[in-house]
Amino acid sequence: MRLVRIIIMPKEGLLDPQGRAVEEMLRDNGFNVKNVRVGKVVEMEVPEEVDLKLIVEKYIINPLIEDYEIEELQGK
Amino acid sequence: MRLVRIIIMPKEGLLDPQGRAVEEMLRDNGFNVKNVRVGKVVEMEVPEEVDLKLIVEKYIINPLIEDYEIEELQGK
Repeated sequence: MRLVRIIIMPKEGLLDPQGRAVEEMLRDNGFNVKNVRVGKVVEMEVPEEVDLKLIVEKYIINPLIEDYEIEELQGK
Repeated sequence: MRLVRIIIMPKEGLLDPQGRAVEEMLRDNGFNVKNVRVGKVVEMEVPEEVDLKLIVEKYIINPLIEDYEIEELQGK
């Protein structure tokens, strides 16, 4: 098995109401932050030979509105 | 400014109903995955000298139930 992390973000240019809300809250509290985006992360152990692209694109994300990247964490 | 990514996961040992649901759905579809955990990710641009620990621990996560790590993406 290997341990993977999938980072899922709203596509560039799409509205991100959660990110907007966090940005506004932080700015109201005096922090000069910009371009806040909120996404999801899924970590899981998968078999070595699994078709991770299929899992992610068919079952986990909505490719119309989300982009993703995969990080390999340590194997197990 | 620098671009940072905050990875927020449910603490080890805490129930993670979203992760459980994703794991069950993937196993029902024939994928032999294990230990699925679902968390959040926040990306933002912050000033160089900002107290990122304060922002994250006071405003973004709930330290009772969530752990986090910070990744530095490229500066801007």
